[in-house]
Amino acid sequence: MSKLLIKNTYILTMTEEKLTKGDILIDGQFIVAVGQVPASMFTDDQVEILDGTNCLTMPGLVNTHTHAGMTLLRSYADDMELMPWLNDAIWPAEAKMTDEHIYWGSKLAMVEMIRSGTTAFADMYSSMEEVARAVSETGIRANLARGCLAITDHDDNSIKESRTLFDHWHNSADGRIKVWLAPHSPYTCPPDYLAKLVNLAKELKTGLHIHVAETTDEINQIAENYQRTPVEYLLDNHVFDVPVLAAHCVYINDNDMTILAQHHAAVAHNPASNMKLASGIAPIAAMLEKGITVGLGTDGTSSNNSLNLFRDMSICSFLHKVNLLDPTALKAYDVLKMATIGGAKALGWEQEIGTLVVGKKADIIMVDLDKPHFCPWNNVIADLVYSAQGSDVKNSIIDGKIVMKNYQLPHLDVREIYQKTYESAQAIK
Amino acid sequence: MSKLLIKNTYILTMTEEKLTKGDILIDGQFIVAVGQVPASMFTDDQVEILDGTNCLTMPGLVNTHTHAGMTLLRSYADDMELMPWLNDAIWPAEAKMTDEHIYWGSKLAMVEMIRSGTTAFADMYSSMEEVARAVSETGIRANLARGCLAITDHDDNSIKESRTLFDHWHNSADGRIKVWLAPHSPYTCPPDYLAKLVNLAKELKTGLHIHVAETTDEINQIAENYQRTPVEYLLDNHVFDVPVLAAHCVYINDNDMTILAQHHAAVAHNPASNMKLASGIAPIAAMLEKGITVGLGTDGTSSNNSLNLFRDMSICSFLHKVNLLDPTALKAYDVLKMATIGGAKALGWEQEIGTLVVGKKADIIMVDLDKPHFCPWNNVIADLVYSAQGSDVKNSIIDGKIVMKNYQLPHLDVREIYQKTYESAQAIK
Repeated sequence: MSKLLIKNTYILTMTEEKLTKGDILIDGQFIVAVGQVPASMFTDDQVEILDGTNCLTMPGLVNTHTHAGMTLLRSYADDMELMPWLNDAIWPAEAKMTDEHIYWGSKLAMVEMIRSGTTAFADMYSSMEEVARAVSETGIRANLARGCLAITDHDDNSIKESRTLFDHWHNSADGRIKVWLAPHSPYTCPPDYLAKLVNLAKELKTGLHIHVAETTDEINQIAENYQRTPVEYLLDNHVFDVPVLAAHCVYINDNDMTILAQHHAAVAHNPASNMKLASGIAPIAAMLEKGITVGLGTDGTSSNNSLNLFRDMSICSFLHKVNLLDPTALKAYDVLKMATIGGAKALGWEQEIGTLVVGKKADIIMVDLDKPHFCPWNNVIADLVYSAQGSDVKNSIIDGKIVMKNYQLPHLDVREIYQKTYESAQAIK
Repeated sequence: MSKLLIKNTYILTMTEEKLTKGDILIDGQFIVAVGQVPASMFTDDQVEILDGTNCLTMPGLVNTHTHAGMTLLRSYADDMELMPWLNDAIWPAEAKMTDEHIYWGSKLAMVEMIRSGTTAFADMYSSMEEVARAVSETGIRANLARGCLAITDHDDNSIKESRTLFDHWHNSADGRIKVWLAPHSPYTCPPDYLAKLVNLAKELKTGLHIHVAETTDEINQIAENYQRTPVEYLLDNHVFDVPVLAAHCVYINDNDMTILAQHHAAVAHNPASNMKLASGIAPIAAMLEKGITVGLGTDGTSSNNSLNLFRDMSICSFLHKVNLLDPTALKAYDVLKMATIGGAKALGWEQEIGTLVVGKKADIIMVDLDKPHFCPWNNVIADLVYSAQGSDVKNSIIDGKIVMKNYQLPHLDVREIYQKTYESAQAIK
C-alpha cells in the first residue's frame, strides 16, 4: 500500500496557531491532502488507515543539535565542573569508543528520539559512517557532520572523512540524510584549518554545523587570540559565506546577532544542556526579535541527559520567562515553532518538512491526548509545551513511513539495541 | 491478603546514595523488611507478589505545594502578565467553581499525581471537604488546608471552615489525611487575621501552609505597610510558633533564612511555577546550606501546567546550576532528597514516609527502567533526575495499598474523572 490515511484527528499544521479536525492523506513520501480528504483521492485497497481519534497530529520535532553516540555516556559523569568533567570522564571514555560502540549508541539515541516525538536531528560526532548506517536503518531523518578539531586532526583525516561521508551518504536513504561539515568551534579551529572546511563546504555546496560562544572561557580565549568575539572571528574567516548552524550562542552581543541575522545563520538553542553545564542563558528572545532562525536542541545525553524535546520545550519557555522576568516571553506557540519549522529551517529543510502542508514530506507525529495531564483540554497548544511528556507520542511517521505505531517500533529490535548499547558502555569504562 | 512482596527489584531507600538489589515486604500499612526478606516472614497464600524485575523501587514523591482543584484551569490562560492573568482569567473562573467542580478537578489532579510518581501532596484551596473526599477515594496521602484571605473571609467563614475540615478529616482515611491551616500569604493576611489562624493552629496542634515572598510586589507591599520583610512580618506575628510550610520564598534574604532555619520552618520550592510566572529564582542552594528543610512542589496546574515532579526535579537542578553558574549545585541526589524525605519532613510526615525503612508506612513507587532514556544504565540516580519521565512510574503503593499497577489505576473510573472534569471546566468558562 502506497497511501496512508490519518483519520479523524486534531490537526496542528504549524502554519497557524489553530487546531482543526480532519484527515491527512500521505502518498509515498509526501503529504497530499490535509483537512478534508476527498474519497476520490484513494481506494480502500490501496490505503492504510491510522485512527487519529483523541490524537493531536502535528509536524515531528526537529532536534537541531546532538551527539547521538554520546548516549553511551548518559549519566556517566554529572554534577561536575566543566574541565574535570571533560578531562577525567568524557574524553577518556570517548578515546575508547569504537565504530561499533558508536553505531549502537547512536541507534539507541534514534530510538529515544523517535519515541519522544523527534523525526529529524542534526548530529556532530565521529564514526559518522556508522551513524549514517543507523539513520538509514531506523528511518529517522538526519543532518550529519563529522566533528573536526585541528588539534586531533592528524593529516587532515577528519576533513577527509567528512568528504568521504558526503560522497557516501549525502542525499541518501531516499533523501533522509544530508551531510554537512563540522568545524568543532572557534577555539578548536584556527583560521587556516577553518578555511579548509569553509572551502570544502563551498565546493560541496553544503553547510557548516559548529559550536559557537558556549562559555565565557571561549569568549575570553577568542578575545585574547584574535581580539574578536567568536561570531566576528567566524565572519572574518568567511564561515558565513555558506549555510551555518551555530549551536549554543550563549554569549553573543547585539552586533553578533546582527551578523547572524544578516547572513541567515541559524542558531541551535540547547537550554537543558546550557543549564546543566552551567554555561549560561542564550538571549533567545532577542535573537527571535532580530529575525534569526532558532531551532531547539538537546545537545548530547551526557549533558542533558535525555533527548526528550517535549521536556526541553517547557524548559525553554520557563527559562527565558524567568530570566527576563517576563511571563509573556517565549510563548507556547513560539516554542513549538522553534521545535518544528524553526528547526527544519535551521537544518536547511524548510521546503521539505516542519509544517503539515500539501507537497511537503510526511514527517508527522500523533500525540495521544487521552492522558490526565492534558485534561480538561482547555488549550492543547499550551498543553503540548507546558504539560506533555515525550511518552505521549503514540505514532510517528517519517518520510511517509510509519516508524512508531501504538508506541512500538515494529521495524527495530529494540531489545538488541539496549543490550548492545549496554555492552558498549561497559567496554569503554 | 494482608502482605505484599515486591520481588527482585533495585532498591533506592533514600537513606543513602546507593542502589541495592532485593525484595521489600509490606504488612498492612507498613514496610516490614527491605533487602533480604526471610521466607519465614510470610506464607505464599497470604502474600501478593509484585514483580520488581527491571524496576527501581523508591519512596513515592511528595508534592509540597499545589492547588489540586486548579486542574480545571490547566492551560486556561498562559503567557500573560500576572495581574491580567489573575484579574481577567483565573479569578473570574474561580468565582464560578462549585464544590462539585472542585471535587472532580481535584480527583483528576490526584490521578495525574499518582501516574507520575507522587504519593503525597500538600494542598491549599477552597471546597476542601470535597478535596478530602477525593483523597479518601483515590488512596493518595495529603496535607490539606483551606486557603484563608482576610478580604474574602466574610464573618471568618474560611476560618470556621478550616476548623470544621479539621474536625471532619484530620487523621482520617487510615491516617492518610492531615489538616493544616492556610493563611494565604503575608499580603492577604493582616496581623489580627493572622493571629486568629495562629491561635487556632496552636489550639488544634497543627501547622500552617502559607505563600511567602513569591514576588517583588509582595516584598514592596509588606515593606511599605510594615517596614519588614515577609518573613520578619510572620515572625513578629508569631507564625513560627507552630510548624510552617512556606511556599515559594523566592525573595528572602540571609536574615530571613536564619529565621526559617531557627524555627524549623520548611520551604516548598516550586521551580516550574516560579519560572513560568516569571516570579524569580529562590535561593535554594543557600537555604540547604543553612539547614532549612526544602521540599519540591509543582504549584497549581494553571502555572506549571502539570503535576509531574519527575520533570520538575530536572528543572530544579538545571535552574540552580545555571543561576549560580555552578554545575555542582543541586546534585541529582540532593534533588531526589528534596522530592522525597525533604517533602515528607516539610509536611510533618518524616516519621512515617519519605524513605524505605522498616517501620515506616509503605508509600512506594516502582520506576520501569526498561526504557531507552535509562539505557545504558550508567547511573540510575542521575537518570531519575535528569532523564526520567513521570510516565516511567509503573506501580505505586500508598499506605500499603496498590493504587497503580502496570500503569493502570484499577480502583478508579478514570474515564468518568476525565469526563466530569471536562464538563466542570466548560461550566466555569
